[in-house]
Amino acid sequence: MKKYKRNQRIGALMKIFAEKPNYIFSYNYFSEVFNAAKSTISEDVAIVKELVNELDYGRIETISGASGGAVFIPVMGIEEKTDILSELCMLFSQKNRILPGGFIYMTDLFNNPNIVTNIAKIIASEFSNIKIDYIITVETKGIPVAVMSGQKLNVPVAVIRRNNKVTEGATVSINYVSGSSNNIQTMSLSRRSLKENSRVLIVDDFMKGGGTCKGMADMMREFNAEVVGTAVVIETKEPEKKLVDNYLSLLVLNKINEKEGLIEIVPNYKLLK
Amino acid sequence: MKKYKRNQRIGALMKIFAEKPNYIFSYNYFSEVFNAAKSTISEDVAIVKELVNELDYGRIETISGASGGAVFIPVMGIEEKTDILSELCMLFSQKNRILPGGFIYMTDLFNNPNIVTNIAKIIASEFSNIKIDYIITVETKGIPVAVMSGQKLNVPVAVIRRNNKVTEGATVSINYVSGSSNNIQTMSLSRRSLKENSRVLIVDDFMKGGGTCKGMADMMREFNAEVVGTAVVIETKEPEKKLVDNYLSLLVLNKINEKEGLIEIVPNYKLLK
Repeated sequence: MKKYKRNQRIGALMKIFAEKPNYIFSYNYFSEVFNAAKSTISEDVAIVKELVNELDYGRIETISGASGGAVFIPVMGIEEKTDILSELCMLFSQKNRILPGGFIYMTDLFNNPNIVTNIAKIIASEFSNIKIDYIITVETKGIPVAVMSGQKLNVPVAVIRRNNKVTEGATVSINYVSGSSNNIQTMSLSRRSLKENSRVLIVDDFMKGGGTCKGMADMMREFNAEVVGTAVVIETKEPEKKLVDNYLSLLVLNKINEKEGLIEIVPNYKLLK
Repeated sequence: MKKYKRNQRIGALMKIFAEKPNYIFSYNYFSEVFNAAKSTISEDVAIVKELVNELDYGRIETISGASGGAVFIPVMGIEEKTDILSELCMLFSQKNRILPGGFIYMTDLFNNPNIVTNIAKIIASEFSNIKIDYIITVETKGIPVAVMSGQKLNVPVAVIRRNNKVTEGATVSINYVSGSSNNIQTMSLSRRSLKENSRVLIVDDFMKGGGTCKGMADMMREFNAEVVGTAVVIETKEPEKKLVDNYLSLLVLNKINEKEGLIEIVPNYKLLK
């Protein structure tokens, strides 16, 4: 069996951690992969721990004992967060995004893996200290952000559908009032999609009145789930009072001037404190 | 400014490459991040190149010259592919997944970031030698696989909608015949979502008759786009003749026995040659 140099093991360890953050890898696993003694692995992990710390990537936590292991918890520094939020503001406020009726075309951004990854990294960083069992979202535009956040936090995702689908099995459906349009809408979630008594993080792309997020929270009650957080990519400044409390937005849409083609979007400054 | 040890730079380089595969990083970028001379970076990259090779992670390609850089192209070995496909077969064929009418509940798997990441790694590996500008999918269940594949291949994703949405701007709509149900359905794609003359990879979760993938291919003609590949996670064995040719499936659903609760799913053995 191959033996690897320390350099190589450090690189490989960092790759393994980076590809599966918030996942506990056992020393036994690393031992097998690298064909090396656990004491060697333990030294390697100590080096990786220091490098993660020095480069401001978050932290490595180690679990000691016979079934010991290590987990990489990415936490983003203010500098990187500022860079990402500034870039997002720039992208979302591009002049040509205004659609008739004062809507903003954002679909390309919410489907762009690089942009979605940056958004998910911030969400995962902000919720890295909270125990979460599932991320919940509602189709369609929020799905990429929800799944990428789930990847970063190492939790499964449940997607609420607008309609009842035969491939979902038994579902729970609720009606809710869309905060912005005052329309009554329906959402359905498969009974199988989450276990009872779960702790869930609600993720969505856009919040105006907060009706959709409130609908998701109401749905969670039907599953005896506890909503431990709500994250949206963009909230509108108006109405200031939303139908949900305690949510985190990354960006705030201050105003749209359809005539002049101006969109004013700023970072949520709470994130930069 | 901080200086880093070689060990640390190797680890950090591998993290950067792993988080953004198929993306060309310039030596200038690394030089700034690590506060090190380009000659040093070049030596570091050579070490990373060897480790990627030795550990069967794919390959690092370097671009020489003043604006030189390096890119990590993950390519999966047979062993890892076999492991992933076996695990997928096991998961998708769990007995309790059978729904009334002979449908299979798969939603939890298609929304599980770890499973979706494994699927996307195989898709990205198989299409790593083809120039792709966009990944195309149709809502809803295929979106996570499409976005994660886009992340691995470093290409944007366009999601075709079942209905026309006001937030999509001007759209192109087509009607298509669903291969399995023989129903006529509609799909719409925003005009802004892809540039003319693009090379696209179609990605979807499930293929029976192939009508949906054919619909997507037809839609691509309206955008003067060239379909350079089609990837689906699961295809059914019957009908053997699909409405599209030249597609790649990861898994083949041989049969469902609703009465006995048996699902027979096997890997697509072409992937393991």
